[in-house]
Parts: sequence; structure tokens; C-alpha cells
Amino acid sequence: MEVVQVLCMKGGNGDTSYAQNSLLQKKVISLTKPITDEAISNLFCNNFPARLCIADLGCSSGPNTLFAVLEFVTTVDKVHKKMGHELPEIQVFLNDLPGNDFNTIFKSLPTFQKDLQKTMGAGAESCFVTGVPGSFYGRLFLGKSLHFVHSSYSLQWLSQVPRGLESNKGNIYMASSSPPSVLKAYYEQFQTDFSMFLRCRSEELLEGGSMVLTFLGRISEDPSSKECCYIWELLAVALNDMVAEGLVEEEKMDSFNIPQYTPSPAEVKCEVEKEGSFTINRLEASEVNWNAYHEEVFSRYQKIVADRMSREKTEFVNVTVSMTKRG
Amino acid sequence: MEVVQVLCMKGGNGDTSYAQNSLLQKKVISLTKPITDEAISNLFCNNFPARLCIADLGCSSGPNTLFAVLEFVTTVDKVHKKMGHELPEIQVFLNDLPGNDFNTIFKSLPTFQKDLQKTMGAGAESCFVTGVPGSFYGRLFLGKSLHFVHSSYSLQWLSQVPRGLESNKGNIYMASSSPPSVLKAYYEQFQTDFSMFLRCRSEELLEGGSMVLTFLGRISEDPSSKECCYIWELLAVALNDMVAEGLVEEEKMDSFNIPQYTPSPAEVKCEVEKEGSFTINRLEASEVNWNAYHEEVFSRYQKIVADRMSREKTEFVNVTVSMTKRG
Repeated sequence: MEVVQVLCMKGGNGDTSYAQNSLLQKKVISLTKPITDEAISNLFCNNFPARLCIADLGCSSGPNTLFAVLEFVTTVDKVHKKMGHELPEIQVFLNDLPGNDFNTIFKSLPTFQKDLQKTMGAGAESCFVTGVPGSFYGRLFLGKSLHFVHSSYSLQWLSQVPRGLESNKGNIYMASSSPPSVLKAYYEQFQTDFSMFLRCRSEELLEGGSMVLTFLGRISEDPSSKECCYIWELLAVALNDMVAEGLVEEEKMDSFNIPQYTPSPAEVKCEVEKEGSFTINRLEASEVNWNAYHEEVFSRYQKIVADRMSREKTEFVNVTVSMTKRG
Repeated sequence: MEVVQVLCMKGGNGDTSYAQNSLLQKKVISLTKPITDEAISNLFCNNFPARLCIADLGCSSGPNTLFAVLEFVTTVDKVHKKMGHELPEIQVFLNDLPGNDFNTIFKSLPTFQKDLQKTMGAGAESCFVTGVPGSFYGRLFLGKSLHFVHSSYSLQWLSQVPRGLESNKGNIYMASSSPPSVLKAYYEQFQTDFSMFLRCRSEELLEGGSMVLTFLGRISEDPSSKECCYIWELLAVALNDMVAEGLVEEEKMDSFNIPQYTPSPAEVKCEVEKEGSFTINRLEASEVNWNAYHEEVFSRYQKIVADRMSREKTEFVNVTVSMTKRG
């Protein structure tokens, strides 16, 4: 079973859908907006293309998807008005894996376009939104076709569960009790995946084009640090309890590992420099407190877990990198 | 209630889905393939672009969607091999209204891409498929961005139910018993819609780019001719029976009209010439016998209707026009 085929946020608009449980992710998009704004503004330092192509990778479904698009488009609009230029036509590519609920996004587009019209007037008609199903660890777009790439809280997902995790019994992620070989396997998968991501995007971006990528990451250089994987440790506790109660087979628990890696700023920087196509403009780590999102992030069925969490660490770390394609 | 918001083929893969009931439409794509092939080949008369952008408008969901894409891409591949050129990167835009089941298409993409790889080898990796939700009676793509536009059995759908059909009581379409004002209202809506379609596409197509459009149409110059609207007359008979039996309110029946117009070749030609951006290369009418598709087109619940039809006319008329954007 490949990650590409099965990984998706829960679609639709129901109580347990991603659409209804993604306020925290919206908060992160807002937090990193100054960096996105700066990157978009810098695109217009030298010229004003008549057609602008923007991609959001790992767009998911729900209100955040079009919220992010609204942010991009209104920023472009503001920059152009300030400079006295006409708004370019804008092509927005929304990408996620083929299992993503694109139907729900597409059905909300007519309303979105009316809202956009209220904010921007006639310019809204020049904004074209399309859906691009596929893994961002491969090519998704025509060569030299994009001006700007954005991705928020998606790149921590790996392309596959790393190989060689047989010894990670009782854990489902990198835990403090995981053997060094497990930490190494996870890190190597991150390196392989992120360097492939950079190579693909460097082919698709135009010279001078830029990217703003936000990972769910960590500040500590210790990859098993609790700051990011705590959520999975709690899930592991619950799953181990279920194994003890005979509700889950031990074999299944032992073979289950989350395909995620939450990198530090230094690890991100290292891959970007190794790949060589991009110049880093900014590299920042920030924290977002998710106390306020407890009940939303964890549905009422997981209240016990949430209570336990509120007594310990309640921050997620965002690692954001802004970079420009070299000439 | 706007047509744009509600019109869609039945999604998914169930017994009554469009995916399971569209063999006739597949037959039409195959029948018109020589015209499509010719149009694609002609694109490469003068130059071989490194990136080719193709759009299928009214792509629907189900096997036909990617069948059409396969046809385009393998034709491009053949032409390029014959001429000894390298395959360009190909961007395929699949368009339909926002209610279309894009999720089902997207989920079948990984399998499609594997199939494509078997046929074409490594070139398959340079084919990027995206979904474009929206009405083709408005702009959908960036200006001057497309090389080829295809549409099969979609353009007979109007953007709205024509106004002024109050006198069309007892009918749900243009029937022999419809007053002249009804025929006029339908024809005018077709003119408005198709000229808008042509204007939008002429902005989006590159100079020398081309379109192959197949309408469900008619040969006769009489717009109420039975050759195309017979299917709706039968539905009207059934609905009128249901009104008589009190199962459907008469008021609802009287206010219900199908937003469809099946043009003759002369009517298509007239609009293309009036709009002025395109040169017609071919304009053909052909017939497809749908006897073979009865049980498929009409599910078992409609067997009675099908039986009645097999005693009368069993052909659909395709009107296909191939045209090139003027310089």
C-alpha cells in the first residue's frame, strides 16, 4: 500500500472532516503571511508579468485551501495597485494527492469567486483556479512555468514509510526509546524526499521565481525531541493500550509507522544548499500554541488525550523557508 | 437555481453512474478521432513547441475522460516520433462544471499514468493532468496559453434554460407542438452561448491553435425535428403520465425545460463566421446508432421506454467542427 494512494485528510464537511478541524493550520498560514507577502512582492522587483502562475502544494480541502488562495491573490492585487500596474491574469494550481477531496474545493469555487469580486472588483475574473492531483515528490507542472510556489504544513509528510523500521516496536514514530537506526532511516528518507522536491520545483520554476515552504518542524537538533512528535507518542500510548486489551493485533502495531519527519531549520538549510538551485532569503522557526485548538484538533472522542496534553507541551514548531530560484 | 451549479453527470462508479453508462459517448470520441488526429498533426506543421497545452471541455467523469486524454497524447507521440522530434511536455486541462466528479477521475490517474508508461515509455512522465472546474461559457484559462481544445457531446448544453418558455406547457424541450416563440428562444440562447464560447476560446488559444468540437446535433434545418429531441419527447410522455397520475405537480412539469440545443451544421458555421476569430477546416455531420447501447443508455428501469424507441428512430447525429485560430 503506497502512501501516495492512501494518504489524505478526511474529506467533506462533516464533524470529523479536515475542513472542520483545521483552524490551527489556518493560524499557521496567517502567521507566515508576512513572509509570503514579501516573497510575492519581490517577484515584481524587476518586471510585471502579464500572466502569473502560482502553486499551492498540499492544498488539502476545506476553508484553508481557498483562504490561502485569497491571501496570494489579494497580495498580488495590492502590490500592483501600489505600483500603478494592471493586475496580471493569475493561474492558481491547487495540488494534493489524488485521494484529496477536490470535489469539495471545486464546489465552493463559485462562492469564492463572488467573494473575490467583492474585494477586488473585475480583477477577480482574471483568477483561474485548477486542481493538480499528484505527489509533490515528482514533477507536477510544465518546465519553467511557475512564478511562485507555496506549501504549508505538508512537506513534513514523507513519500513513504522509511525502510528498516523493524526495530521500532511499540513506537509509531521517532520516539526517545527508538534505536539510532530508526532515527537514521527517518532522516535519510527526509533527505531523499526533500532533495527530490527541490529538484522537481527547480525545473518547474522560472528563473527568479520563489518558494515559501512551512514545515511542521522542530527547533531542537535532537530528532526524537518531544516538541513535535509528542502527538504521535500519545497515539502510540493509546494503541499500545489497545494491543494490551486485544483490540489491535500486536503485529499490526509493530509494523505501523507514521510517514512524517519534522525537520530542524539546519536540516532544511542543509538540503537546500546541497541541491544548489535556490538562494535562501529567510529561514525561521516559530511556535504556535494549540491549546486554543484542542477541542477542534481532537474531537470529543479524544478529550482524554487532549486533557493529558494540556498538562505538557502545547506548542507546534513551524519551520519556514523562503527562497529564490537562481539564474 | 443556476444550471452551472446543478448540472452534472452522475458521479462515482455505481450502476447508474455516467461512468457505467457512457459507451455511446466513447463511440463518438472514437468516430471523430480522425478529425482530432488531423487537427493535432496540423499543429506541428510549422513548429514543435517544447510545451503543449491541451484542454478537454466538458470532460465529465468515468473511463471516457482519460480515454480521450490517451488519444490526444498518443497522437502527439506518434506525430513526433514520425518526424524524429522529441516529445514535448504536455499539460492536459480537464474541464467540467464544479459539480462534476473530479475525485473519481483523479483517483484513477495513477493507474492511467502507469498504462501510459506502457504505451509511451518515459515520455508518459511528461504528461501533466489537471482539473479545471467552471463553465466553458466564461474564461477558464490564461490568455494565449492553449494549443488545442477538444469538446465532445458537451456544447449542446446551454448555459441556462432560455427565458420565455412559459408557453411550452406539456413539453420539456423543443417539440413539434411547441410554439415558434419557444424555438426562437432556444435558438437565441444557443447563439448567445456559442458566440461567448468562441470569444473566450479565441482569447485563450495561441495563434494557429485549433479546436475540434462535437455537438449532439441534427442534420435537418428544422429545430424541432425528431432526430435529436426524440429522447426528450419520450421523457415528456412519461412525465405527463406522472402528472395525470398525480405523482408530479402540473406546475412543476410546465416550468421544467431542458437547457439543451442540438444545432445543425449550418447554425454552427453561422456563429463561427460571425465571431470571426477562427477558420473552419472541417464541418461534418455523422450518425451513431444507439440501438447497441439501449440497455446501457437506459437502465433496466427504463426498459419500456427503450422498447418503444427501438421501433422508431435510433440514431444520434454528431455535428463536428474543426477550426484554427486566425493570426
